[in-house]
Amino acid sequence: MSVSHPPVVCFLTDFGWEDSYVGMMKGVILSHAPDAQLVDLTHGVPPQNIREGAYQLLTSYAHFPEGSYFLAVVDPGVGSQRRIILAEAAQRTFIGPDNGLLSWVFAREKPKRVVDVSRRVDSKDIATTFHGRDIMAPALGAVVAGTSVTTLGPVIDNWVELPFPAVKKSGSKWEGEILSVDRFGNLITNFPSADVAGFSSHAKVWFDLGEKAATVRGLSPTYTSVDKGKPLAIAGSAGFVEIAVRDGSAAALTGLREGSKIALSFLV
Amino acid sequence: MSVSHPPVVCFLTDFGWEDSYVGMMKGVILSHAPDAQLVDLTHGVPPQNIREGAYQLLTSYAHFPEGSYFLAVVDPGVGSQRRIILAEAAQRTFIGPDNGLLSWVFAREKPKRVVDVSRRVDSKDIATTFHGRDIMAPALGAVVAGTSVTTLGPVIDNWVELPFPAVKKSGSKWEGEILSVDRFGNLITNFPSADVAGFSSHAKVWFDLGEKAATVRGLSPTYTSVDKGKPLAIAGSAGFVEIAVRDGSAAALTGLREGSKIALSFLV
Amino acid sequence: MSVSHPPVVCFLTDFGWEDSYVGMMKGVILSHAPDAQLVDLTHGVPPQNIREGAYQLLTSYAHFPEGSYFLAVVDPGVGSQRRIILAEAAQRTFIGPDNGLLSWVFAREKPKRVVDVSRRVDSKDIATTFHGRDIMAPALGAVVAGTSVTTLGPVIDNWVELPFPAVKKSGSKWEGEILSVDRFGNLITNFPSADVAGFSSHAKVWFDLGEKAATVRGLSPTYTSVDKGKPLAIAGSAGFVEIAVRDGSAAALTGLREGSKIALSFLV
Repeated sequence: MSVSHPPVVCFLTDFGWEDSYVGMMKGVILSHAPDAQLVDLTHGVPPQNIREGAYQLLTSYAHFPEGSYFLAVVDPGVGSQRRIILAEAAQRTFIGPDNGLLSWVFAREKPKRVVDVSRRVDSKDIATTFHGRDIMAPALGAVVAGTSVTTLGPVIDNWVELPFPAVKKSGSKWEGEILSVDRFGNLITNFPSADVAGFSSHAKVWFDLGEKAATVRGLSPTYTSVDKGKPLAIAGSAGFVEIAVRDGSAAALTGLREGSKIALSFLV
Repeated sequence: MSVSHPPVVCFLTDFGWEDSYVGMMKGVILSHAPDAQLVDLTHGVPPQNIREGAYQLLTSYAHFPEGSYFLAVVDPGVGSQRRIILAEAAQRTFIGPDNGLLSWVFAREKPKRVVDVSRRVDSKDIATTFHGRDIMAPALGAVVAGTSVTTLGPVIDNWVELPFPAVKKSGSKWEGEILSVDRFGNLITNFPSADVAGFSSHAKVWFDLGEKAATVRGLSPTYTSVDKGKPLAIAGSAGFVEIAVRDGSAAALTGLREGSKIALSFLV
Repeated sequence: MSVSHPPVVCFLTDFGWEDSYVGMMKGVILSHAPDAQLVDLTHGVPPQNIREGAYQLLTSYAHFPEGSYFLAVVDPGVGSQRRIILAEAAQRTFIGPDNGLLSWVFAREKPKRVVDVSRRVDSKDIATTFHGRDIMAPALGAVVAGTSVTTLGPVIDNWVELPFPAVKKSGSKWEGEILSVDRFGNLITNFPSADVAGFSSHAKVWFDLGEKAATVRGLSPTYTSVDKGKPLAIAGSAGFVEIAVRDGSAAALTGLREGSKIALSFLV
C-alpha cells in the first residue's frame, strides 16, 4: 500500500449507539491522525460480552487493507489492573484491553510484537471508566501518526487467551456450539465449513437443531435451495457452517442462541 | 465536480448494525479506493424488505453529489440465479441485486447504462451468502478506482421492476397507501405533495386515518400548526404528503403502518 | 491545526438510524466540503428530547479537534418561527435550532459570535419538516467551505437558554438529579465529580438510590472495586458522578432514569 493512502482505523465496542462514547474516541483519533479513514465494525456487542467481540473481530479484520488499525473496547475490567495491549499482528495493528478480546486474532496469526501500553493509567487526566477514550485512542492515534510502538511500553510475550470453542468429535457425532447469532437470526456454528464440506461430498450429514425444529440434512448451496420458512445449513461467509431459515430467522425457529450446543452427525 | 474530490460511496442494506457485515464491505471498498468518502444511508431496512430499501434509496440519492456511488444490498435471493446489476443512472452509479431494489430510482431517471456483473458468482472465493462483500463491493470498488463498467459484464436493457404503489383515483376520493414509517412515527404516503397542494388551494381536502383517529383536514404548513398530540397532514421532505402528530407518533395514534391504505377526499 | 487538515464535521440528532435522514445531511455537507471528516456523535437522542441532546453535545465537543464543526438537530419546532443559529464558540463552530440545544455548550464557553441564519426559511425549495437538511447543512457546508459566517445573517446577542439542573444544597444533604442514562445503565448525575471528590477525602459521603436499592458509600476508584452485581458511585468520564453496577445496569437495579432525583449526604 502506498504511504500516501489515508490510514484506516476500525472501531469495535460494546458501547452501542445511544451515547457519544464512540464519537469521542473518533475525535481523539482525528486529533492525532486528521486524515484517517474511520470505519465502524460494530458497537452492538452485548455489554461486557468479550467473546462476541472476539468473534466479530476475528471474522472481519482480514477484509480490511493490510496496514489497517483496530481499536477494540469490550472492557468490563476498565480501571482495574488488567493491562492494555497494542499488537502488530496479521499485517495490521490492534489495541484493546488484555482480556481475551484480541486473542482469537492472535491465535489465528501469531503477533509479530505485543506491547503493554498500560502505563498511562495513573495519569491525572484519565477517566477510570473510559480508557478507550483516554488511553487506547491516544496511544493508537500516536502510532497512526508515526510514533514507534516500542516507545509506548514494554514488549511482552504473553496475553490473556480466550479459549475458542472446540468441536468435540466422538465417533460419527460432533458436538459444536453457536458462536454468534446475526441480525437475520442466522446461527453461526463453530463447525468449519471446509471440514463439513469435505464430509458432505461422501457422507450423509445432518444437524440436530433441538426440540423445536427437525434436523437439517447436508449443506445447501444457497438460501433459496429450500422452501420459504424452512431451515437449512450452509457454508457461511465467516468460514463456519451456519444454520439459517429461508426468509426467516433460525434463532426464532429453533430457540438456539449464542453458546447453545448443536450436534452434527454423519454416516459414511 | 473536480476530479480531485474524493469519491462518495453510500451504503444501504438490511444488515442492521449488530454485526460487522457493513464494516467488511467498507473494508473491501477501501482496498480499491483508499480515499473514498463512506456514508451510510441506512442499514435498518427490515430484513428482506426490498420495497423499504427502494423507498430509502429513491428519496435520498439526489441529496448526494453527482458522481456518487451507491451500494445497495437487500438480497433475499443471494446465491440464487438472480442477477447483480451495476447501473449508471441519474448522474450517479448504483450496484445491487436485480430484484427491484434499484428500480424506483431507474423509474424516475432512466439509466444511461446497466451492466450485468453476476459472472463472478462461480468463483471459488465467493461466499454464497454474502455477495455484497464478495461480488458487489469488489465490482463497485473497481469502478470507483477507474475500471470501465463495460469490462465487468454485458450491457443489458431490462431489469426487475418493482411496481411503485399507484394512487387510485375515484371521483372525489383517492386511495393511497403508506410508503414508509419513519423514526418519529410519521406516516409517509404515496400522495405527491404537489398534487395535493394543488387541490388544497381551492378545495376542502381531508385524510381518513381509520378507526383509531379522526380525519385531518388540509395540509398544515408546519408541525406546530396544531396542538401537541394532534394529527396533521403536511408536505413532507420526501415529496409526499406525510401524516404526523405534533410531538408524538402518528403510527402509534393511528395504528397504520407500511402498506396500510389511506384515503384522501376532497370537495371543490 | 494546519490548514491542510480535512475539516471535521460532527452530527448529533434525534433522527435514529432507521431512515436516511442523517445520510442526506451528510450528502449536502459533502456537496460543499468534499473532503470533510464526517463523524456521528449520536442519533439516538429520544425524539424531541432537547435536554438529552444538550447533554450529549456538552460532554463530547471538547474531545474533537479545535476548528471542528457540529450540526445538531433536535428540533420539535421545525418549520415554526424558532430561529436557527450558527455560533463560533469554544474554538469550534455549532449550528442548530435556537431551542436550548446548543446552550449548555454556550454556558460553559461564551460564544465569540452567534448569527441568526433563519432567513432562508421562506425559500421555495425548503421542506418545512427538514431544516436540518435544507437550511442547516447548506449553511454549515458553506462555512466549512470558507464562507464568512457574517454573510449568513445578522449577529445576535441572545439565544434560548436551557437551564442546567442545579444541585440543591441543604445542610449536609444535596439533592441532584440524573442527567442521562447510558447504554450500560450507568446513571450520570449532575454532581460534579470534583466537588464530591473534595468531600470524600475528609467526609463520609453516601448516595440514596431510592427504594429499590440500598445507599452506596463514597466514590469507588473503579467498577471492579465492588462485587459483581453491586452498585457503586464513581467519578465518570463526563466530569460527573455516575451510579453504576459492576457488570450490570444501575438503571435496572434502581429504577431511576433521566430526570429522577437523587440525594447525596455527607458527614464530616
